[in-house]
Amino acid sequence: MTTRKDLRSLDELRNVTITPSWQEAGEGSCLVEFGKTRVLCTASFTEGVPRWKQGSGEGWVTAEYAMLPRATDSRSPRESVKGKIGGRTHEISRLIGRSLRAVVDMSKLGENSIVLDCDVLQADGGTRTASITGAYVALSLAVEWALENKIITSSPLKDSVAAVSVGIVDGTPMLDLPYEEDVRAETDMNVVITGSGNFVEIQGTAEDGTFNRDELNELLDLAVKGAGELTELQKGALA
Amino acid sequence: MTTRKDLRSLDELRNVTITPSWQEAGEGSCLVEFGKTRVLCTASFTEGVPRWKQGSGEGWVTAEYAMLPRATDSRSPRESVKGKIGGRTHEISRLIGRSLRAVVDMSKLGENSIVLDCDVLQADGGTRTASITGAYVALSLAVEWALENKIITSSPLKDSVAAVSVGIVDGTPMLDLPYEEDVRAETDMNVVITGSGNFVEIQGTAEDGTFNRDELNELLDLAVKGAGELTELQKGALA
Amino acid sequence: MTTRKDLRSLDELRNVTITPSWQEAGEGSCLVEFGKTRVLCTASFTEGVPRWKQGSGEGWVTAEYAMLPRATDSRSPRESVKGKIGGRTHEISRLIGRSLRAVVDMSKLGENSIVLDCDVLQADGGTRTASITGAYVALSLAVEWALENKIITSSPLKDSVAAVSVGIVDGTPMLDLPYEEDVRAETDMNVVITGSGNFVEIQGTAEDGTFNRDELNELLDLAVKGAGELTELQKGALA
Amino acid sequence: MTTRKDLRSLDELRNVTITPSWQEAGEGSCLVEFGKTRVLCTASFTEGVPRWKQGSGEGWVTAEYAMLPRATDSRSPRESVKGKIGGRTHEISRLIGRSLRAVVDMSKLGENSIVLDCDVLQADGGTRTASITGAYVALSLAVEWALENKIITSSPLKDSVAAVSVGIVDGTPMLDLPYEEDVRAETDMNVVITGSGNFVEIQGTAEDGTFNRDELNELLDLAVKGAGELTELQKGALA
Amino acid sequence: MTTRKDLRSLDELRNVTITPSWQEAGEGSCLVEFGKTRVLCTASFTEGVPRWKQGSGEGWVTAEYAMLPRATDSRSPRESVKGKIGGRTHEISRLIGRSLRAVVDMSKLGENSIVLDCDVLQADGGTRTASITGAYVALSLAVEWALENKIITSSPLKDSVAAVSVGIVDGTPMLDLPYEEDVRAETDMNVVITGSGNFVEIQGTAEDGTFNRDELNELLDLAVKGAGELTELQKGALA
Amino acid sequence: MTTRKDLRSLDELRNVTITPSWQEAGEGSCLVEFGKTRVLCTASFTEGVPRWKQGSGEGWVTAEYAMLPRATDSRSPRESVKGKIGGRTHEISRLIGRSLRAVVDMSKLGENSIVLDCDVLQADGGTRTASITGAYVALSLAVEWALENKIITSSPLKDSVAAVSVGIVDGTPMLDLPYEEDVRAETDMNVVITGSGNFVEIQGTAEDGTFNRDELNELLDLAVKGAGELTELQKGALA
Repeated sequence: MTTRKDLRSLDELRNVTITPSWQEAGEGSCLVEFGKTRVLCTASFTEGVPRWKQGSGEGWVTAEYAMLPRATDSRSPRESVKGKIGGRTHEISRLIGRSLRAVVDMSKLGENSIVLDCDVLQADGGTRTASITGAYVALSLAVEWALENKIITSSPLKDSVAAVSVGIVDGTPMLDLPYEEDVRAETDMNVVITGSGNFVEIQGTAEDGTFNRDELNELLDLAVKGAGELTELQKGALA
Repeated sequence: MTTRKDLRSLDELRNVTITPSWQEAGEGSCLVEFGKTRVLCTASFTEGVPRWKQGSGEGWVTAEYAMLPRATDSRSPRESVKGKIGGRTHEISRLIGRSLRAVVDMSKLGENSIVLDCDVLQADGGTRTASITGAYVALSLAVEWALENKIITSSPLKDSVAAVSVGIVDGTPMLDLPYEEDVRAETDMNVVITGSGNFVEIQGTAEDGTFNRDELNELLDLAVKGAGELTELQKGALA
Repeated sequence: MTTRKDLRSLDELRNVTITPSWQEAGEGSCLVEFGKTRVLCTASFTEGVPRWKQGSGEGWVTAEYAMLPRATDSRSPRESVKGKIGGRTHEISRLIGRSLRAVVDMSKLGENSIVLDCDVLQADGGTRTASITGAYVALSLAVEWALENKIITSSPLKDSVAAVSVGIVDGTPMLDLPYEEDVRAETDMNVVITGSGNFVEIQGTAEDGTFNRDELNELLDLAVKGAGELTELQKGALA
Repeated sequence: MTTRKDLRSLDELRNVTITPSWQEAGEGSCLVEFGKTRVLCTASFTEGVPRWKQGSGEGWVTAEYAMLPRATDSRSPRESVKGKIGGRTHEISRLIGRSLRAVVDMSKLGENSIVLDCDVLQADGGTRTASITGAYVALSLAVEWALENKIITSSPLKDSVAAVSVGIVDGTPMLDLPYEEDVRAETDMNVVITGSGNFVEIQGTAEDGTFNRDELNELLDLAVKGAGELTELQKGALA
Repeated sequence: MTTRKDLRSLDELRNVTITPSWQEAGEGSCLVEFGKTRVLCTASFTEGVPRWKQGSGEGWVTAEYAMLPRATDSRSPRESVKGKIGGRTHEISRLIGRSLRAVVDMSKLGENSIVLDCDVLQADGGTRTASITGAYVALSLAVEWALENKIITSSPLKDSVAAVSVGIVDGTPMLDLPYEEDVRAETDMNVVITGSGNFVEIQGTAEDGTFNRDELNELLDLAVKGAGELTELQKGALA
Repeated sequence: MTTRKDLRSLDELRNVTITPSWQEAGEGSCLVEFGKTRVLCTASFTEGVPRWKQGSGEGWVTAEYAMLPRATDSRSPRESVKGKIGGRTHEISRLIGRSLRAVVDMSKLGENSIVLDCDVLQADGGTRTASITGAYVALSLAVEWALENKIITSSPLKDSVAAVSVGIVDGTPMLDLPYEEDVRAETDMNVVITGSGNFVEIQGTAEDGTFNRDELNELLDLAVKGAGELTELQKGALA
């Protein structure tokens, strides 16, 4: 029988903590932790929208993901020093933005923008799923702020959204992979799911080999379970 | 009943053409067309591997995707002129590379590298799936070339690989979306499948709203059917 | 007596093909081939002019030249990946733009811009001269399109323009050098000539040694002959 | 009589907290807070030195300073996105590096490098002085780690180092300026002082007007007092 | 007793020459020489101010410092070729700008900008102090030009400004260090002083070791003396 | 009859001055002036060659051209600040390099490199031709330096080289155009000629209209005359 190094069962999340308003800066923020993975999510609410949205009466939500140079076991050069952003950073920033936009009614946001900064302070696998889960909390707090300050009159949030990783490690599907499991995974999948249980995004990759329809179904079952629990934790943090 | 503008049925591919060795340059090449989408795929086989692979006895396969500035309906600035590569380009290049590596046995490739250049000459939706489908053909031809030139002694190809887009447009799941359908799609999914029918990559995104488990299953059925037909076309082109 | 590898006589062009409207994208396009050199030329007609031309009542014509990474015998890194455009690319883009502007009456173009993209798919010497020759055809087609769509009322084209390379190889002046001759040339000259036989641009370089007035005159005679033949081929393609 | 908004006396530091080993990543780290200013300092100890130090038998210490985009009251664009590092970032990174090197005996470090990353999570004035003060703690912890792991045999630390800002606000010299005082300051000075009370760096700037010798002396007196207190706090954190 | 290689006494400036209007281009210019250090300072006066100053009724003064690649003993790569400006260049440009702004009454400048370009043609230590000293002369000439052309009605110059380096070399404080002394200095200080003898900027760095209060005072005495002499030379050049 | 603003006859050069060794830095240097155009040319002689020349036993000569921001009538932004080099700069740098290489026997240079920096301090037309003419003088001085220091044993200089501009202004061919004539020229030509009277490079451009064979011949006659005079001035400067 497969045992995980951290003794979790196969369908168990790591210890997840969401500390809302960890920062004073930002219209909303939280520090989200999935085990040792630690991401600071900050929402900046600003008047105005990108040029291509001007005059539409609608708002915009976008995200920027980044990692501190020593978030990981060995130090990586800063992207600002290298003078360009890597493909992975771009990819994750775009994913977070799409995931959040899926639950926002842009017409209720008015011509305002919310930027979600997800800065990974410490990385131990699952930084993109922690970022999405935390960014939703920061976004909610920024929406509350805008309602309180009467910048918007009704909440543009149609649903909540959370994300979790699943993967097949040593032939066994399991939930919420830390770095140590992630590097060994044959298949790796990130799933973004709304509070009401629908899919926003599925990104499954066979890192080593391929996967079949049955394996896919097992992984999706695990993801749905994990996302449900994250939804509850988000509710708690926002209560 | 839903009818598609180009009169295809819902599970029908566009007219797909693969012209092998369209270019003289490159160890393998093809011009692949999915309807009006037209991608030039060229494989460059070179001795040596990236530094982090040196001494491993294994090879490496990577890809670079790009679009000509006037591949689309209105002209986009060149990424070389802007001085940086956009997030979308990075994301697709990485996807193509991963997809091809899934069917290559790196140990049989020896310490050699194959770069697949996928340059979109004309774009009408599905450029990434056409790129993967064509890149596999160019890769196969480069492998043949290396076998003929006795640079490698047995084929490192474990399987073939092809990709197709599926999506839900106006509530209806359908196969192989041209641009006109793609922009209207509520859900958009790119699926990379091996010749033997297993998944390499699933990237599904709810562009507008969300999707549920049943819709996901319908989309995957369409993708499996389309990929099977692309596999046959690849075989024909390589025969 | 000097014989050329491809058995042409000294004043003979390579096999030149111009396929108009090879692409559907673009207001005008052609695929031009000088032997194995193959360039896709696309004209983008857009309303408006660069800032420094605004309010002048005049239009603008410019060009961008680029080479696919594996257009040549060995793969070159993409300029977009390197994050900057090399000196050679800049130089040729500027040359193409100047050459075309020489035959355009900007006041008849109105405040509209035409960008000529010349993308070298395969390179075997003479890419800049093939680009100019093909770009004129794409430009003409875009002008026709604008006339048909009543965006302009009379043609801004004052003349046609074509370009050809000449050089001294092993002491012998000859016309239209492929790569194999180009690298061995002592003197290399690119000449841009209008349909009516006047010079637009002469760029002669002693790659190895120097050249005297008599040699210059022989080279110019060859160029005038070659350009005259290209003018006829352009007319044929546009007929 | 001048009163400060936060009711501190003129020669009083803000509430300063140093949390050692706040991060698990890094050979040494601390979270340092000067009032609302909050900086994460992480030391990365690696074998080897920059090329120009190779073969010298000596080590190297350097620093990189950065601010999260929403560390401040309004969001600033990321330097990685802009593709270049601003002058202010460069200047502060260099200052931190010089300040730490002043207390390190490079020959005792062997050919090893320590990089100090100072990432400002929240900024309320004094980010560079907080960074230096915290970076010394992270550096000390990394040195301890290297001693424990027998990578070095004796401590290269010759002294401790701390930094504090002083300035003339509304004509009155005062210690440790938060943002609100900093923007109003006529003269602004950052002073880096060793544990034994000597100067490492003095950077005084008349932001508005000029300052005379007497004012300079008053400012230096305040800085010496403040740095002494910071030295005690560093000792406490490292105990 | 300490003797300097160039036989100067400890409190003696190098031979300083200021040639006003060395260039015809620019609204003001001078060639300033501190020994072999040679800087071309040019002032460009233009209508308008940066966006954040628009509507303020006030002007702006800024500076850009650069070094020719072979200003120094061995050639350095151009920053334009490297594609980015180094930290040192940024730091010095900012210092020059701040120093000049200290003596300008921005309200008397109207909404006009003056850019001071300080290009080091030859470098032998003290390039930043020579730049500030020369930039003030170029600035004064540009102000005169603007007065003569009735663009401004009264001089915005409140005072003059000059700068000088001082340092401790082999334990001895001395004035105006050439490169040979600068590299050996234990402490290095750049001091910017107005014509009326007040400080604008003090930047003192212990390059090797630390310095105490007494040493600081000796260095400041030397700087005050040197700056006084530079002020006289500026007056002479502008007479 | 055409009269030139500066009263020169049509075949007369501007006042040309070459000041050898104007700089102390560099193995060779000169300040070259063509009327108000003023270029500082500096040669840097270094051991070693670019990678692609290593092991060839041959040397390399290259050039970098740049303009100070306020060399011209209105200030241009620095290329280092913009983060990239413009097409014109690239083009001229390459032209200078090719022109000098035409008179150098690389095998006699050994595996050494000479970089010619041509920095335009003031620009009034003809900066590229002044640069080539001055760069040859700096190159000669660097070669002398290398001979004196016994780094090379015989001079690699096969000939001298100079360059001059000619053009057709208001229908009249004339020699050595200042900016005022250059902007009005219908045809503009830069000609690089060796001391023995052969061509190295001819770059003729019809800026407005086209030019015929007779006009070309007149322009070349003027260029040959002007270059002959520049050759004498170079000899004088090197005597």
